[in-house]
Amino acid sequence: MATLVMQLLGCDVAALNTVHFSNHTGYGQFKGTRATAEQITELYEGLCQSHLTDFDVMLSGYAPSAAAVEAVGAIGMDLQRKAEKNPGSFFWVLDPVMGDQGRLYVNTDVVPAYKKIIHHADLILPNQFEAEVLSGIKITSLATLAEAITAIHATYNIPHVIITSVDLTRFSQSSSPPTTPPGSLAIIGSTTRSDGAPRLFRIDVPALDCYFSGTGDMFAALTVARLREAVFAADPALRTTKSWVSPDEVPATDLPLARSTVQVLASMHSVLEKTMEARDAELRAADTQGDEQLSAAERQRREHLRKSKAAEVRLVRNVQFLRQPTVTFRAHGWKKEDLPSSR
Amino acid sequence: MATLVMQLLGCDVAALNTVHFSNHTGYGQFKGTRATAEQITELYEGLCQSHLTDFDVMLSGYAPSAAAVEAVGAIGMDLQRKAEKNPGSFFWVLDPVMGDQGRLYVNTDVVPAYKKIIHHADLILPNQFEAEVLSGIKITSLATLAEAITAIHATYNIPHVIITSVDLTRFSQSSSPPTTPPGSLAIIGSTTRSDGAPRLFRIDVPALDCYFSGTGDMFAALTVARLREAVFAADPALRTTKSWVSPDEVPATDLPLARSTVQVLASMHSVLEKTMEARDAELRAADTQGDEQLSAAERQRREHLRKSKAAEVRLVRNVQFLRQPTVTFRAHGWKKEDLPSSR
Repeated sequence: MATLVMQLLGCDVAALNTVHFSNHTGYGQFKGTRATAEQITELYEGLCQSHLTDFDVMLSGYAPSAAAVEAVGAIGMDLQRKAEKNPGSFFWVLDPVMGDQGRLYVNTDVVPAYKKIIHHADLILPNQFEAEVLSGIKITSLATLAEAITAIHATYNIPHVIITSVDLTRFSQSSSPPTTPPGSLAIIGSTTRSDGAPRLFRIDVPALDCYFSGTGDMFAALTVARLREAVFAADPALRTTKSWVSPDEVPATDLPLARSTVQVLASMHSVLEKTMEARDAELRAADTQGDEQLSAAERQRREHLRKSKAAEVRLVRNVQFLRQPTVTFRAHGWKKEDLPSSR
Repeated sequence: MATLVMQLLGCDVAALNTVHFSNHTGYGQFKGTRATAEQITELYEGLCQSHLTDFDVMLSGYAPSAAAVEAVGAIGMDLQRKAEKNPGSFFWVLDPVMGDQGRLYVNTDVVPAYKKIIHHADLILPNQFEAEVLSGIKITSLATLAEAITAIHATYNIPHVIITSVDLTRFSQSSSPPTTPPGSLAIIGSTTRSDGAPRLFRIDVPALDCYFSGTGDMFAALTVARLREAVFAADPALRTTKSWVSPDEVPATDLPLARSTVQVLASMHSVLEKTMEARDAELRAADTQGDEQLSAAERQRREHLRKSKAAEVRLVRNVQFLRQPTVTFRAHGWKKEDLPSSR
């Protein structure tokens, strides 16, 4: 997912696969192998020995063990060291894949491994649960969300954060502003100011009633391409500024991070809508006759496999929505101090 | 290369990687791992258990051992068995990667492994050397080329063959027709008639003075997409005919194989021309100052690495040439009996 999306947006990608699985894990079963930390390191050494490390951006995602996270971290740090004479020439987007919906799906030792490397990254993309794990703050309101982001900026000295999906409708009514549309998700981002304060923006998008696999990787990959474009479209000084941190006077909604995220979400929304249409058609056409002879448990398993396959994100025929998104979303600036609940 | 090219042409690809290398082997050095036959088989079992094997086409390429070739062969045969009630619903393109320029670059036991599986494939894509290995006929003229293709059709009962690159200018003058343009390569293809006779076509393309890596995979991947399109554009009965073999009355130049190859070569020529321009610019801009302090051998090594990197095929920014090729090549029909040398 991540490799193809970046390629479709014009990036030349050196993909270092950390797993080799037959299918995504949402199917509930898969076969294949995980890369060891040694294999990850060896592939990077292969790139180094042939001088193939002139990367503009590194995107790191799921790594199958704490040692693998450390190996990926060492690669990011080495690339940063190689680029340190040219600020802004290398940018590391780190997706701290640890869990979702209140549950870790990695070994517990992966958490401290991430906590050790995150302060080297330029942008992290935790989901709500991962933001809680990293900040130590339970997110139950916009106020605690702002606190978590502020804490992440401060604790890890990380300039850019996007919390990729927050279900504001689950927050208590008092803290949720009346403008929250029903059935929508919020994406919350921030780039720090020089005093460490967050510049918070929020983008609401309609929630789609379907479980898609790979959307986290899709978001990350689109962000890699779009953020760099937005930085290059901004003040020319920005692209030679360490970590692409905009000057303090740039408001939240004018941040390259906000501008790029609006585009990223527009692309995703269109592709996922098209995927839902294709999924529905595929499920309507599905041959379920054989199912009748199966046990209830086996029938349920077949049904899950069929639904998982039908919901595979339709990328290759929907490239135009990645390249030229048409949907329009808006970023809104917000501050903890302005929230009704903190009055 | 193969995965991305098929994706760019609208195919959903399940890629089963047989090697995990840091870079292509043209650099002369690389690190990484090869998949074992067991790992290849296990990944396929993973697809089977989740009912993810409804493939229209399989493209098989380099496999790192005889056992791996057999494992890939078993996958192709299993997919054929699953599709046997619906002729034409599954098509296997096999690139018998064994060597080039008169030299094997696989273990010698890979050759008999290929010879065992090839008769199950629908189309094979040997280069000139591999065609010699498979046919047992040394190709030194158009006459021996025709004999080799005829032998491959007969020996392996394989309906479609393309010899992906033949340097006719190296043939003795008498056998080379006077129309061979200097500095050109010929691509020779054939689909059998029901009596086993080849329907030979030939497409001449300008040779580009550069060593590109991955062009065999690019050719194969483009062929997967374009051949299926050409079959679907032909007589509707063809797509439900086993192995998509056109009726005997279809002349060589009207074969879907000839029509698709013309398009494939047009795409390749444009992408490789753009690659050469980019390569030349990259080499002109290269910083070679540090080279002066190196030993002659080390300087040569650096130079080779630099040239290899500069010649990396530029795909992601040249997608339009894959999707809408503009160059025009022509397929010419020919017969062994019509050659000057056989008169």
